[in-house]
Amino acid sequence: MTDAGPDRKPDAEDDPHAADRAAVAGADAETPEPETPKPETPEPETSEPETRDDEWELDPNVVTAATEAAETQDRAALDAALAPLHAADVADLFEQLDHDTRDTVVRMLGSDLDPEILSELEDDVRDDVLAAMEPAHLAAAVRELDADDVVYLVEDLDEDQQGRVLEALEPVERIAVEQSLQYPEYTAGRMMRRDFVAAPPFWTVGQMIDHMRADDDLPDQFHDVVLVDAAMKPVGLAPLSRIMGAGRDRRLDELQRDLMEIIEVLEPQEDVAYGFNQYHMASAPVVDDSGRLLGVIHMEDAMEALDEEADEDLKRLSGVGDESLSDKVLEITKLRFPWLVVNLATAVLASMVISQFDATIQQIVALAVLMPIVASMGGNAATQTLAVAVRALATRDLTASNMRRLVTREAVVGLSNGLIFALLVAVVEVVWYGDALLAGVIAAAMVINMVAAGLAGILIPIALDKAGADPALASGTFVTTVTDVVGFFSFLGLAGLVLL
Amino acid sequence: MTDAGPDRKPDAEDDPHAADRAAVAGADAETPEPETPKPETPEPETSEPETRDDEWELDPNVVTAATEAAETQDRAALDAALAPLHAADVADLFEQLDHDTRDTVVRMLGSDLDPEILSELEDDVRDDVLAAMEPAHLAAAVRELDADDVVYLVEDLDEDQQGRVLEALEPVERIAVEQSLQYPEYTAGRMMRRDFVAAPPFWTVGQMIDHMRADDDLPDQFHDVVLVDAAMKPVGLAPLSRIMGAGRDRRLDELQRDLMEIIEVLEPQEDVAYGFNQYHMASAPVVDDSGRLLGVIHMEDAMEALDEEADEDLKRLSGVGDESLSDKVLEITKLRFPWLVVNLATAVLASMVISQFDATIQQIVALAVLMPIVASMGGNAATQTLAVAVRALATRDLTASNMRRLVTREAVVGLSNGLIFALLVAVVEVVWYGDALLAGVIAAAMVINMVAAGLAGILIPIALDKAGADPALASGTFVTTVTDVVGFFSFLGLAGLVLL
Repeated sequence: MTDAGPDRKPDAEDDPHAADRAAVAGADAETPEPETPKPETPEPETSEPETRDDEWELDPNVVTAATEAAETQDRAALDAALAPLHAADVADLFEQLDHDTRDTVVRMLGSDLDPEILSELEDDVRDDVLAAMEPAHLAAAVRELDADDVVYLVEDLDEDQQGRVLEALEPVERIAVEQSLQYPEYTAGRMMRRDFVAAPPFWTVGQMIDHMRADDDLPDQFHDVVLVDAAMKPVGLAPLSRIMGAGRDRRLDELQRDLMEIIEVLEPQEDVAYGFNQYHMASAPVVDDSGRLLGVIHMEDAMEALDEEADEDLKRLSGVGDESLSDKVLEITKLRFPWLVVNLATAVLASMVISQFDATIQQIVALAVLMPIVASMGGNAATQTLAVAVRALATRDLTASNMRRLVTREAVVGLSNGLIFALLVAVVEVVWYGDALLAGVIAAAMVINMVAAGLAGILIPIALDKAGADPALASGTFVTTVTDVVGFFSFLGLAGLVLL
Repeated sequence: MTDAGPDRKPDAEDDPHAADRAAVAGADAETPEPETPKPETPEPETSEPETRDDEWELDPNVVTAATEAAETQDRAALDAALAPLHAADVADLFEQLDHDTRDTVVRMLGSDLDPEILSELEDDVRDDVLAAMEPAHLAAAVRELDADDVVYLVEDLDEDQQGRVLEALEPVERIAVEQSLQYPEYTAGRMMRRDFVAAPPFWTVGQMIDHMRADDDLPDQFHDVVLVDAAMKPVGLAPLSRIMGAGRDRRLDELQRDLMEIIEVLEPQEDVAYGFNQYHMASAPVVDDSGRLLGVIHMEDAMEALDEEADEDLKRLSGVGDESLSDKVLEITKLRFPWLVVNLATAVLASMVISQFDATIQQIVALAVLMPIVASMGGNAATQTLAVAVRALATRDLTASNMRRLVTREAVVGLSNGLIFALLVAVVEVVWYGDALLAGVIAAAMVINMVAAGLAGILIPIALDKAGADPALASGTFVTTVTDVVGFFSFLGLAGLVLL
């Protein structure tokens, strides 16, 4: 992975034929063959798809260099360390520094801190960095950012601080930011960009190109021109790639995409991300209640949202809230506490089930030894089903139409795995204790608990989803409660009936 | 969410002023105000960001309609049901139908089956559908697809079937597909598109536009022109939005992006997806060993890869392999079996720990009742840490630079949560059994196990990562083994020492 910045010198300029050879539109590439080592990408590449590639990882030497520069207040060394980094990488570096070092670095950079870094930082670090910046530098930085990045910067600040930052903006820009802040976080209104290019559908390619050339304030990056009617309602999207390939007299609406998904401004970012991925969209217009165009969401923003939502699902499924790597011990302890309390309550519930059978256990201690196996296998099987169900709900693949079939399938899978593991665990028991009756009891309990695991693993997230809750949230705890209770109850209960 | 297809009539055509009002490049949008209900988007929109929005979900009535049409062999009804759907939605529909109905639908559609549907299907369903299609129809469909979609279609077929499909292609196209198939799955070589637009950096905007207009075979959708030198090595990316806004005599290299990440053809798709999201790239050139341009990856492809990788992480963390919703009971049972076997082994290990203390348990049955609480709390705390660590490794935020700090932090969080829950569980014990000594034992065991949980939760994924394995894979089982063993051993061991 190498950067080829704008300073890289093209070396084909003196060869007029190179143009014809190289300008391949719709080319079929040549056969790849190993050749001489290439100068642009000196690192040897791994060929294992599943091996993590450290080339994308921030070089630890950069972190060390930045830390040392901060300690010695060596501005030149700091600049040298940061110079080769993209703003997103500097943001990663800031996230890796400890709090005091980060503050020192921010103060050392002063007005030279690239504003783009601010919009790449994760929430807590961003707030720390904003607090460490001189107000004048912050104001200058904010003026350089696009409105959507400013919104991200200030959304978590209290009203006072927010007001001070917004004062630095031009009135037009400030109004745009304030309007965006009116939409709830994690909605299309917060994701959309307010600088977009729109045109009437009857414009020609020539008119469009002339208009864009005359405009000094074009957005730097966009993929489609939004075609709008007289009421500013989006009626189509014309991709730049088609406009550029068409003659000057073609109308834009002849070039428009087959599909345009219109996003309503309050639509959750999760749904927007899903839509972009489902339909491979490059951009989508965002409209207000009356259908008028307010902004445009780009695929880049949707990809970020998709990543955020995946992060949230994985963490919620594991009982972790909105936690980040930069949180301090106290914050993390607080964030994880509620889930552990819920788990304590359910663990006590499972213990109560066990205590109903304490006389049985006293007579046959082997029951105490073996009972965690039944509970643990159930918990594991349920977690498997749960992961599949949560993902299927997130990707809209588990619907009213196939729900019955999928629930039945999970029960059957639970039954068949239950039968297999009943046999295995019975063998283990016979080898260990040599008690055929007890082997029968644990085998029966295993079958019961594995079926319960399959059903709980799919029905609980479905129920949470129907109730309007996030199916990933708390599912894990509910599901393992079911398998613990059913596991202990069926094993100890059957043992009491059969063995005493 | 509404589709505005190309058949939608723009209604501004007769108003010449509309053009001036509507063509807003870099516009600040107007204040959003609720107005009259809008005609384009009739459904009322939910305003809760976390509520799942069913608008993106496939309408169950469509599934019912398609199923009925298949049963009655009513082709007109089938067409009516499918007509409003995007190819991606038809693919979702196919995935929801049961196997026989799906085959019937595929046969009824015959040569009218939109080839795009094939490239949207998930693996198993795709293979079923390919098997159900007449060879002649399949051949015709394949000829309509881009090379990268054909690759996706045939990659899992056996060599015979693959050969038959590829025979249908034009020789040039077939060679492209065969070349792509030489790269391992889940690498950049499989993700890239081989039809791209490249030009020498000294070309002007005018030359570029004229060249594109003259080319009948432009890719339908792309975001950047790849600037290449005489040796076909990428030296920059010129975004279409900048080319379109620039005068005809500007050179392309004056318009190029600050950042171009060059992807090597064997780079894992996980890393490619990470890079696109980190740097908000619209496209990136893919090169061979000698640095020559082979293809281009678009953000759309990277987003799909990001989604696949998130899916994999979540499922692996829950002990589910490469499983999909359309798998049959036997397949699922087989896929989940290995994880359950590992879990059985570790559960037996935990039971062996318990059996060391069976004499103690016989004397104090309360130990059997309470011991699952210690194990369960440890397992839960470890799962929380694990989720955070796995995500941090996936996003390259847990690195050599901050590893020591983060491991220490997890140990401290484990200690502080351990102290809190030691107190809580001691209170529970006193209320329940009124035994102060036993309360002290369970409290001490809780602290020990929570610290072990924090350490295991972060150290095990780090160790797997260092060993070149996926940290999500198998972490869960290892981690809960640690907390089960430590939990039972510390609780029962301390009880034996203190209480007997």
